[in-house]
Amino acid sequence: MIGRARQPTPHAVAEIIELVAATTDAYRDQFPAVLPRAAGLIVPGLVDPETGTGVFSSNLGWADVPFKQLAEERLGLPVSFSHDVGGAGEAELRLGAARPFRNAAVVTIGTGIASALFIDGRSHSAGGFAGELGHTIVEPSGRECPCGGFGHLETVGSAAAIARLYTERTGTAAGGAAEVLIRAHSGDGDAALVWSEAIAALALGLSQLVAVLAPEAIVIGGGLASAGSDLFEPLETELDRLLTFHRRPQLIPAQLGEDAGLLGAALRARDLLASGA
Amino acid sequence: MIGRARQPTPHAVAEIIELVAATTDAYRDQFPAVLPRAAGLIVPGLVDPETGTGVFSSNLGWADVPFKQLAEERLGLPVSFSHDVGGAGEAELRLGAARPFRNAAVVTIGTGIASALFIDGRSHSAGGFAGELGHTIVEPSGRECPCGGFGHLETVGSAAAIARLYTERTGTAAGGAAEVLIRAHSGDGDAALVWSEAIAALALGLSQLVAVLAPEAIVIGGGLASAGSDLFEPLETELDRLLTFHRRPQLIPAQLGEDAGLLGAALRARDLLASGA
Repeated sequence: MIGRARQPTPHAVAEIIELVAATTDAYRDQFPAVLPRAAGLIVPGLVDPETGTGVFSSNLGWADVPFKQLAEERLGLPVSFSHDVGGAGEAELRLGAARPFRNAAVVTIGTGIASALFIDGRSHSAGGFAGELGHTIVEPSGRECPCGGFGHLETVGSAAAIARLYTERTGTAAGGAAEVLIRAHSGDGDAALVWSEAIAALALGLSQLVAVLAPEAIVIGGGLASAGSDLFEPLETELDRLLTFHRRPQLIPAQLGEDAGLLGAALRARDLLASGA
Repeated sequence: MIGRARQPTPHAVAEIIELVAATTDAYRDQFPAVLPRAAGLIVPGLVDPETGTGVFSSNLGWADVPFKQLAEERLGLPVSFSHDVGGAGEAELRLGAARPFRNAAVVTIGTGIASALFIDGRSHSAGGFAGELGHTIVEPSGRECPCGGFGHLETVGSAAAIARLYTERTGTAAGGAAEVLIRAHSGDGDAALVWSEAIAALALGLSQLVAVLAPEAIVIGGGLASAGSDLFEPLETELDRLLTFHRRPQLIPAQLGEDAGLLGAALRARDLLASGA
């Protein structure tokens, strides 16, 4: 990787496309010896990589945006377009923790919970609707999810949910899931309870994925994975408790860190050139 | 279909193979003009079609049986080997209700609940471990499943469970799920409750499958599907209640009836010849 810049994502589609163009121009200036031949674009939300469409993002407020086409017209380059978690998953599959496997799920646990699925080495996105692990029901009578459903995994097991539930329970603000974990380690019973309920919910959600898809491995990344053994050890134990004859997947930490999504976007852009698109 | 015979399945593997051979001989006598060039074998339990192995059947008491090899040696013919529900699913995909779709789940609800998954038109069996919808958890604190797990869909939503739970609740034997349904229609509140709890559990299990795999269609067969609109209408309603932005699959009755598994076995046997195996 020769250059990297981080900027807040604008909400308006036109501004996003202009930012992409400005970033491309900045790279052209910064690395004059490099001739860009393709670009890779990833966004959150519901994404259909096959049609190059941003189907829906409640957070960013768009629907049915032909991102690939808009970016290609503006940049004059072929542009790959996919989901951020899907891109991270593809990078983990091709370069990272999931490389030894042809059947794997790459789960990202941060503000939300999403997953990229690989079946026989191929990505399964179902027009962007597959892998919505954060929006599986783990507790039918559970709390409401911003999406309108109830008892979704994301409302209990995400990093954001851990911080929020701790605050709800104690009235004490927690800066994030990491702080809840530190409190749990220093004997805070509420923090320990919120953490263990998150683990139980995550294990239940993973057990449902295992029963249906039976991946050989589940790679876990995103902010919560930085908890390391505090996440993985109880999750392994709880998953073992829930599974019986099912194929027990290996649980593996993601390897590529926060740039996994960018790597995935770059890999997809390179694929465009290889396929002659 | 020119011939069909039904016999109870023996438990011992050697007897199964002999029964297959005897059936083949009987067909040779009965249809002398037909030259058998391949055979198709399907069994319940955990099945690995890629290696031709019956991995595990708790009901029939076998483990790691090389069925394909044993049958080929005994018959002197190429033999396809797969799962009974997988075979039924493949038949529905190629000849029946799932034909218009490339992403579909074919769910069989009878004594147990199993499903065959098709992703981009290809079967996903994961060595026999995929599609175990009956052994997904719908109620973590629920009753024990014969497999050793707790709160599995099969313990509430299968035809067998409906009959059993009605009997548990009322002390009155019910001949089967159909009888429970008849009682519910004639004003038996216990029967209505057991039926509606089964529907709720089935919808929950399907919602988990939808969030992860996002199939375009879910084809439902097996004994319980004969309930028709008494199954499909409340199941549609409940599934609509549970899903939010997810891709809502069509729920479609299976078309090929109880011989779907046999048709799938025959299709696979024909594939062996087409591929020159």
